[in-house]
Amino acid sequence: MFDPIAKLKEYVAHASVSADPAFAKHMTGAREFVGGLLGEIGFDVEYVPTELHAVVVAKRHGQSDWPHVIIYGHYDVQPADSVELWDSPPFEAQERGGRLYGRGTADNKGPLMAHITAVARLLEKEPDLPLNLTFVIEGEEEIGSANFKSFLRQHRDKLAGADFVFLSDTGIQRADQMVITVGLRGMAAFEVEISNARTDLHSGMHGGVLHNPIQALTELCASLHTSDGRVNIPGFYDDVREVEPWEREELGKLNLSEKEYAEFLGISSFLVPPSYTPFEAIRFLPTLEINGITGGYQGEGPKTVIPTKARVKISCRLVPNQEPEKVKTLVFATIRDRVPKGLKVRITPQHDATPYLVVPPDRSNTPKDQSPVLAQAFRATDAAVEKIWGAKPFYLREGGSVGLIADLKKELNLDAILLGLCLPEDNLHAPNESFDLSVMRKGIDTIEEVLRRTARP
Amino acid sequence: MFDPIAKLKEYVAHASVSADPAFAKHMTGAREFVGGLLGEIGFDVEYVPTELHAVVVAKRHGQSDWPHVIIYGHYDVQPADSVELWDSPPFEAQERGGRLYGRGTADNKGPLMAHITAVARLLEKEPDLPLNLTFVIEGEEEIGSANFKSFLRQHRDKLAGADFVFLSDTGIQRADQMVITVGLRGMAAFEVEISNARTDLHSGMHGGVLHNPIQALTELCASLHTSDGRVNIPGFYDDVREVEPWEREELGKLNLSEKEYAEFLGISSFLVPPSYTPFEAIRFLPTLEINGITGGYQGEGPKTVIPTKARVKISCRLVPNQEPEKVKTLVFATIRDRVPKGLKVRITPQHDATPYLVVPPDRSNTPKDQSPVLAQAFRATDAAVEKIWGAKPFYLREGGSVGLIADLKKELNLDAILLGLCLPEDNLHAPNESFDLSVMRKGIDTIEEVLRRTARP
Repeated sequence: MFDPIAKLKEYVAHASVSADPAFAKHMTGAREFVGGLLGEIGFDVEYVPTELHAVVVAKRHGQSDWPHVIIYGHYDVQPADSVELWDSPPFEAQERGGRLYGRGTADNKGPLMAHITAVARLLEKEPDLPLNLTFVIEGEEEIGSANFKSFLRQHRDKLAGADFVFLSDTGIQRADQMVITVGLRGMAAFEVEISNARTDLHSGMHGGVLHNPIQALTELCASLHTSDGRVNIPGFYDDVREVEPWEREELGKLNLSEKEYAEFLGISSFLVPPSYTPFEAIRFLPTLEINGITGGYQGEGPKTVIPTKARVKISCRLVPNQEPEKVKTLVFATIRDRVPKGLKVRITPQHDATPYLVVPPDRSNTPKDQSPVLAQAFRATDAAVEKIWGAKPFYLREGGSVGLIADLKKELNLDAILLGLCLPEDNLHAPNESFDLSVMRKGIDTIEEVLRRTARP
Repeated sequence: MFDPIAKLKEYVAHASVSADPAFAKHMTGAREFVGGLLGEIGFDVEYVPTELHAVVVAKRHGQSDWPHVIIYGHYDVQPADSVELWDSPPFEAQERGGRLYGRGTADNKGPLMAHITAVARLLEKEPDLPLNLTFVIEGEEEIGSANFKSFLRQHRDKLAGADFVFLSDTGIQRADQMVITVGLRGMAAFEVEISNARTDLHSGMHGGVLHNPIQALTELCASLHTSDGRVNIPGFYDDVREVEPWEREELGKLNLSEKEYAEFLGISSFLVPPSYTPFEAIRFLPTLEINGITGGYQGEGPKTVIPTKARVKISCRLVPNQEPEKVKTLVFATIRDRVPKGLKVRITPQHDATPYLVVPPDRSNTPKDQSPVLAQAFRATDAAVEKIWGAKPFYLREGGSVGLIADLKKELNLDAILLGLCLPEDNLHAPNESFDLSVMRKGIDTIEEVLRRTARP
């Protein structure tokens, strides 16, 4: 057996930033590294090309009547900027205080390494285990899995007969309490550019006669929320589904402290729509978030210019039953309506994700037609977690988006068991990302146990 | 005699961007180039150090009872970004269609070269001309002449006995009509940074609970204007002085077309406070302009982040009798008041300039104690312009700021004759800056004639 932490360090060294074409070489490196590792433990590995970054598909072939689990992961990571905010180089993983620091250690290279390690151990112990396994590891999760849907459509055969998807790309609140994520927010991302004059203008010679496009953009952005923190787009909340009572109860078990959460974030006050706690807002409400804004002179010193244009990156997190296309139609129409007459506006849609919800077995509202293998896997997870973590998992929705989960549901009618392995202090998408190695070890044990109990008895 | 256009090309090649420390070498190059040229035509040249970029002081010594004219210029230029928007490299001056293209050709290297050329010609023809001349050429005009005031204070002796300042760092509307600028707007520039959480946050895991600092910054910026284009800061307009009737009349002589101006700017509508034309607004009203905004992710593709902070560069153009310090106090207090409780705000003052106004001789409101040499120089200018341009000059306020003019007034009680040589199509501070070479030639003739008529009879 290989050393999972040593392997994870090697994996992190491939700076697989999918958003930036400058990192293409490292994307290939990360893909071939993880494919190679799966080959070493006996899987048939294939790199399935897409329009951008190929998908790694690695299969353990068994009998067609065995349960078939797809293990999903992604080999791409977020950009590491601003690099100067990191305490150690983002792509040279460093172990400090029981954690491994580096871009992608937690999102998603460490959790995927836990799955690979668990499978390797299980098959080493039980080489004849009656379980079909397929790893599907994509390279575009951080840029919205744009080609994953067409991959699923074009390669249904490679995933035929699968019963459910098993993955760890979600979070837990505390290192001693497992959370199975049963809902995810969706996404509708886009850019807005407002422009006015044909060129940058001298603010002395021309200042005072035209609508500065930065000013106009800030006026637009300011109009997108009400002062109580709600999104100010007519119809935005129309399709938000009522929260089930068991969901609020399950969330209550976390016993989360608003004070501690505010301290963790480093904020002195929350801004949450009325009648929701911050923890509910993250899980049950949609957002409209400005991720980046740019316009005019940003270098050192002043520059007295009226810029020709300004641009903003916006992403909406969506909740069931909001549809990305419908939300974008609403939001784009509102934006076009609010840009002052005479100014030019250009809206560029970016990636989408449909929100997701799965109801575990034995709940009041569990679908009657739930797959028996999925139900068995949920029960196996419940038992494995109780054994290894000392307490049953909580079943919670989460605020993040894993668009491919909705795609797997839509294209292949597959639900997912999302075993959380990331902690809030892991700093996902931020400088000094890290992964808790004790969580990784418990994760490996849990995954091994879940898969053992999911195999044909 | 040297060829002024060839010399100007050499001068432009020194990329003297004062705002960016990376260009320090080129600042020295530009300074020594212009100093060397003045040495060649017989001036005693001195580089007077300041805290940042030295001032070139070049003197022609004569008798103490001769009129003494200070010729002002600046050897620094604006940054050339975005370089990809230029049709030819910004620091390799190119002649096309009677214009010289390059950063600084118009602001201020070309106009200064016109003054140097005129002086060289005049002294070649009349080596014994009874006129004291001092060139003062600074290197920080584009970053607000921060050290010019202390230069003036520390080196009063070098400028002792001066009667007025002569310069060309202002504009004309048409190449066939000279404008003498009699008023300039002032400046109060600053940066505002708003921050909230201690680090960048994942917009899925934490989106919906805190005030995004970009959102808060846009809300702040949106509050700074009313929808009719006025600055929305209580008390902002209190000290704006009433416009004299002769000023509106003089402006009327320009016969400017709003339609043509909108076409020139490439805008489909003006945004001007009620009861002012665009041309009046530029000259008679103050502004608050956003020159740059930055926050969050700005690279390729999306990044679903809530940034820790966002920043905006703002500059106010001021008019008589607004005082920069008083305006900043007002604006900063309003901003602090409007930033939502709980968010952190940091305001960093940048450069200031006091607005300026000089009344030419023979006007109803000319000061009784106006210097006879200044009055003579104004009359000489009026006559020289009529002879060379075929029409008397217009006496107008302008929208730009030349802070050192206010400093010269305050520190040395010197007024200025501002002979405009820049056209709107020169694209000052913008890509594809250029200078009209026919204007340059007429400028040289005019300056030569003004100085000849200003010398002791």
